[in-house]
Amino acid sequence: MSTTDTIAAIATPPGQGGVGIVRISGSKVWKIADEIFQGLETPSKAKGGTFLHGKVTAADGTQIDEALCLIFRAPKSYTGEDTIELQGHGGPVVLKKILRRCLDAGARMAEPGEFTKRAFLNGKMDLVQAEAVADLIHAQSDRAAKAALEQLEGGLSKQFNALYDGLMETAADIETTLDFVEDELPEDVFPNLGKKLDASFQTLETLLATWDEGRLLREGARVVIMGRPNAGKSTLFNALLGSDRAIVTAIAGTTRDIIEESFVLDGVPLRILDTAGLRETECLIEQEGIRRARAHSVSADIALYLIDSSQPVSAEDQEHLLKLDPKRTVVVLNKADSRHPNFQFPISNFQSLESSLISGAGVADLKAAIAAKLEAGVNLNAPAHAVISERHRNLLELAKVELISARGQVSEGGEEAAAQAADHLRAALEALGQVTGRVYHNELLDNVFSRFCIGK
Amino acid sequence: MSTTDTIAAIATPPGQGGVGIVRISGSKVWKIADEIFQGLETPSKAKGGTFLHGKVTAADGTQIDEALCLIFRAPKSYTGEDTIELQGHGGPVVLKKILRRCLDAGARMAEPGEFTKRAFLNGKMDLVQAEAVADLIHAQSDRAAKAALEQLEGGLSKQFNALYDGLMETAADIETTLDFVEDELPEDVFPNLGKKLDASFQTLETLLATWDEGRLLREGARVVIMGRPNAGKSTLFNALLGSDRAIVTAIAGTTRDIIEESFVLDGVPLRILDTAGLRETECLIEQEGIRRARAHSVSADIALYLIDSSQPVSAEDQEHLLKLDPKRTVVVLNKADSRHPNFQFPISNFQSLESSLISGAGVADLKAAIAAKLEAGVNLNAPAHAVISERHRNLLELAKVELISARGQVSEGGEEAAAQAADHLRAALEALGQVTGRVYHNELLDNVFSRFCIGK
Repeated sequence: MSTTDTIAAIATPPGQGGVGIVRISGSKVWKIADEIFQGLETPSKAKGGTFLHGKVTAADGTQIDEALCLIFRAPKSYTGEDTIELQGHGGPVVLKKILRRCLDAGARMAEPGEFTKRAFLNGKMDLVQAEAVADLIHAQSDRAAKAALEQLEGGLSKQFNALYDGLMETAADIETTLDFVEDELPEDVFPNLGKKLDASFQTLETLLATWDEGRLLREGARVVIMGRPNAGKSTLFNALLGSDRAIVTAIAGTTRDIIEESFVLDGVPLRILDTAGLRETECLIEQEGIRRARAHSVSADIALYLIDSSQPVSAEDQEHLLKLDPKRTVVVLNKADSRHPNFQFPISNFQSLESSLISGAGVADLKAAIAAKLEAGVNLNAPAHAVISERHRNLLELAKVELISARGQVSEGGEEAAAQAADHLRAALEALGQVTGRVYHNELLDNVFSRFCIGK
Repeated sequence: MSTTDTIAAIATPPGQGGVGIVRISGSKVWKIADEIFQGLETPSKAKGGTFLHGKVTAADGTQIDEALCLIFRAPKSYTGEDTIELQGHGGPVVLKKILRRCLDAGARMAEPGEFTKRAFLNGKMDLVQAEAVADLIHAQSDRAAKAALEQLEGGLSKQFNALYDGLMETAADIETTLDFVEDELPEDVFPNLGKKLDASFQTLETLLATWDEGRLLREGARVVIMGRPNAGKSTLFNALLGSDRAIVTAIAGTTRDIIEESFVLDGVPLRILDTAGLRETECLIEQEGIRRARAHSVSADIALYLIDSSQPVSAEDQEHLLKLDPKRTVVVLNKADSRHPNFQFPISNFQSLESSLISGAGVADLKAAIAAKLEAGVNLNAPAHAVISERHRNLLELAKVELISARGQVSEGGEEAAAQAADHLRAALEALGQVTGRVYHNELLDNVFSRFCIGK
């Protein structure tokens, strides 16, 4: 794939809106623009930083849409290449027709993230910044957006670069020792190298520590609602969302599919899942729903387990609870206003609270309890800051292993150990280099950009 | 509401994409732009038709997003007013932050369609063209998009204007006759006026005749799938869509809710509805589903009634069919490959065809049968052309009534009748004037623009 072939894609979100954009970037952009766009001025002759009024026309000259044509001259564009943006009406059919026309005129359909990939390849941003573009677009909360923007502006890259440069310097220092006969070296050489490595290790650990928060901000915390049929799960789901998303009836087994919705609590996006009631059932559809509910409880960050306290406590509830992790579970004793005289919640190691969801009582307490569980991952009192992603973490963990090995060799001292320490540091640098993209290969780029939307 | 206050809205579709736009229009736009946008150049000093690179900042100076700022100087803008467009990252959270910042800096949230309403009030387009903007955005098929574009370019306005001008001329002619003593008038005056009115009437009827097609293109034809449980309704639904949208099991009563999806057949958008199987049931949820299925069959353009022909024909099927309109119904005899020896389809006035949906046999025939039913409303062989909307039709019907009255009076002849004919024509012109917006009042504009999306 050459970076000079010309790519096109719809750059605005799918669906209906006032305005939509088709972006075209690459060496053939002016030829294509002149062919498909008719305005007072010819696109290929227009100055960068200007836009033209006109229309996009089909090959037979009939009009496809009224449009603006924005002119970007390399390197002053998102990709760093010559680029135009055709701004037409924001209807899916119209935009697809404009895109189709661009493809017929010689562009090819852009891959997901390919515009940003070109920006990276043309040195407009490093890989961590490129990833921040996707994070910013996908941000589900203010806090997540701020973290992504700081990353986009280089806040995270700076820390990675400092770590990289520090290790690079130490690696060079270690290699210098190899040029000396051993007893010519000052006595404190290895201890000093060790201190430097310790400092780098500390920086690496600080970066790694942002991972939990990074995951919660990017993916949202998964909160799964569980319990026996008719405990009030769908009512709780609707109460948390403040809407009537799930169908609520008095009929046990109303919810069969997993229903998922998002909302933001204290700046952290939550993905909240309503599940089928847990019970023995002959119904195949319901059995599948219950199987899915159990599977989701394993991967959830927080499980809300609902118990109907207007009934005597059931052995089944106790059985289900034993399968859950008390640290990640909040037990909600619902229908507390008509509590059964024999009801008693017997499992002391679970956090529990009371609610009467029909009247809304207990919802605020429950939100506070969820927020408290989230605090384990996110310091909600600290201002939003750039946080590492899973890809960063995996590479940092690789680097960490190498760094620990290098540190061990440096403690040992001597030429042999120094040579091995240098090798380990090279390997650590190789991993770290892939974070910002100082070092990259096609597979790495494919992996990074495949999670982008088409058109970015 | 003054047209000089400054409005702002997100102009791109909701959801995630590469790029999103916040549009701001009105007298305070430069003050707001200078306050919230920092680039190399100051927006208020930049030339129209240019765009600036920079960032949108919060009141405390922190960055909200990187952005472009497009400069539109009145009257060269969509609204005809001074306008900017801030093009940021296409994430919902980021765009809402940019919008919020605009509002804090003095803009107010735009109403649905308010940018287009200003374009209308500032003489950039008439009301029929303004409506075409929404039609183009909402177009669900190529044919609908072409029809909307022709309307946007004035194709429909021209016909309305010709009708209006013709009637205006006739009205003036009639009023002229009032200045004469009756026996001074040439003998052929009233017959000639009658001919002119007949011509106008013909034009009006031609316009009215595009209504069926207009409705189908704008709203899509509603196709409802009905039948007894397990006839294969959800299988047919999925086969028409070419996807596994509906859950299919061998369990009768799997589909409870109405499931709706769209697809395009021969340029006409179809909204296809899968419904609950028709049967006697104790289940409240299923009963509600069946009630809804029946309600939908009444308003559908086409009903597909599925019968399981691997079973002897049932009295229930015959009973259900008797409630449907043969002109709008296609009976599908499914499971034809294992047809029951005693199966016989007895109701001869219904069009029927055979299928074996599990293998896909019969789907192409069924699509052809649907297209044939659609031909009643749309001449699929004619090229796409602008077609009237329901609002246009209602006003045309009003005008038609007046026109018929006027024609009657003109046939009668004489001063008294001429005066009444003139009154009727004024009333017809009043109705027609509201189509293109020569005549308008607030309620009319509210009605037209309320169906727009916000940001257009």
